Amino acid sequence: MSGWVRVAGLGPGDAALVTPEVTAALAEATDVLGYVPYVGRVAPRAGLVLHPSDNREEIARAHHAIDLALAGRRAVIVSSGDPGVFAMAAALFEALEARPEAQALDIRILPGITAMLAAAARAGAPLGHDFCAINLSDNLKPWSEVERRLRHAARGGFAMAFYNPRSRARPDGFARALAILREECEPARLILFARAVSTPDEELQTLPLSDATPDMADMRTLVIVGNEDTRQVGRWLYSPRKVAP
Amino acid sequence: MSGWVRVAGLGPGDAALVTPEVTAALAEATDVLGYVPYVGRVAPRAGLVLHPSDNREEIARAHHAIDLALAGRRAVIVSSGDPGVFAMAAALFEALEARPEAQALDIRILPGITAMLAAAARAGAPLGHDFCAINLSDNLKPWSEVERRLRHAARGGFAMAFYNPRSRARPDGFARALAILREECEPARLILFARAVSTPDEELQTLPLSDATPDMADMRTLVIVGNEDTRQVGRWLYSPRKVAP
Repeated sequence: MSGWVRVAGLGPGDAALVTPEVTAALAEATDVLGYVPYVGRVAPRAGLVLHPSDNREEIARAHHAIDLALAGRRAVIVSSGDPGVFAMAAALFEALEARPEAQALDIRILPGITAMLAAAARAGAPLGHDFCAINLSDNLKPWSEVERRLRHAARGGFAMAFYNPRSRARPDGFARALAILREECEPARLILFARAVSTPDEELQTLPLSDATPDMADMRTLVIVGNEDTRQVGRWLYSPRKVAP
Repeated sequence: MSGWVRVAGLGPGDAALVTPEVTAALAEATDVLGYVPYVGRVAPRAGLVLHPSDNREEIARAHHAIDLALAGRRAVIVSSGDPGVFAMAAALFEALEARPEAQALDIRILPGITAMLAAAARAGAPLGHDFCAINLSDNLKPWSEVERRLRHAARGGFAMAFYNPRSRARPDGFARALAILREECEPARLILFARAVSTPDEELQTLPLSDATPDMADMRTLVIVGNEDTRQVGRWLYSPRKVAP
C-alpha cells in the first residue's frame, strides 16, 4: 500500500508564495480535497480528482482523505495560508484520533505562508517583536475564551494577529473585540486591516485604535494590532526589536 | 535610479521551502547581505556580490543595503525563516527611521516559512489553536519582559513557540523560563524540542514539562509548549481546534 495524506498550505493567494514542496506534492497527488475556493486554486489535470467541499466539513474531509490513503491513493488536503494555523492539520489529527488503524499512514504536513506573515510583510514588520495569533471566531470556542486571550495578550505586551475577525454567523464578535482592546490599550495604539493580501483585491489600512470601526474587517481581512512601541516610518508599520529596560 | 532593497526569508533550511518569490529576487539581485550561514545558502554567480556579516551587525547591514539601493544596486538581505519574525525586517525599518532621504526607496519584505511553523508541521499541529511567539533572548529586552510575556501567555491559555531559547551569552535564560512554566502550567503539559528542522540534523523530541531540562535546547532549537488540551495521537502532537465551553 503506497497511499498517503499531505496537508498542504497554499499561502495567501499569489502563486509565487507557494513552496516548491507543495507544488511537488500536488504534482504527485491522485486526489485534492479542500474548501471550494482553495481547491479552485489547483490546476486540473488528467488523473487528478478534485473534491471541493464546504468550509464546515473539516472532519468529514479529513476522514475522506484517510479513506483515500488507506485505499492506496495519494491525497492532498489543501488549506489557505499554513495548514497548521487555524486550518486543516488539526482537523486531520482529530479525525485520526478516532481511527487507530490509520495512525501508521504516511502523513506529512507541508507548511505554507500564513496570512499574518504575508500581511505583516506587506505592511512592514509589525510582528517584529513578540506576538500572538488569535482566532476571533467563536464557532470553536466560547466567547469568554476569546476575551481571556485578548486581555492577556494586551497585558503581556504582545502584538496580536486576528484570524477570522468577522463572520457571517457572528457579525458582532469583532465589535466586542475592539471594545475590549479599547479597555486594555491606549487610543493611539496602531491597528492594521490587511484584506486579501497578495491578490488583486489587496487593501491595507493602518490607523489608531480609536479610529477603528467594526466594518473595517470582513471575512477576507487579517487584523494586526501593534504593541505599545509599534510605529510608522514613511509608509511602513513596524515593531522595534528592542524594548527599553 | 532603479535600486531596491528586498528582505527575503529563506525558510528553515530545505530549498523546497524557499518561495518562488524569494528565488526570483535572488536571481535579480546584484548584492546579497546577511549573517554568514544565511548568505552561505545563496548560490554564487557572476555579477552577484555576497556580503556575509556577523549576527550582531543587523543595523550596520541594514544601512549598507540602503546605501547600495541608493547607489542603484539591487540588494537582498537574507534571513532564515521569515524576515518579519525576530529577524532583519524590523532592523531595516529601524535604520530607515533615521534616514528620511531613503524612505521613498523601493523596498519589499518577502515572507518565508518561519521556524515555528516548520517545526509545528513536522510534529503535527501543536499550533492549531491560539498561540504566541516569544523571543527568549534577553539581548534586546530585559528579563522582566520575558517573564511577563511567559506568565500572560500561560494564563491566557496560549500554546507558545520560543525562538532563541538558549544562547552562548545567556545559557541560564532557558532554565529560568522552564522554572516559570512549571509555576504556571501542570506537570503533564507537553513540550516539543525541534532542532534544525528540515535539515539533515533534524531532531524532534516531545515530553511532559516535568521531564524537560535546559540542555534539551541549543541555538538551533525551536521550542513549542502546548496548551492544556495539546495531546499526542500516534507519533503526532496536536492542539484541538475546539475548546469546550
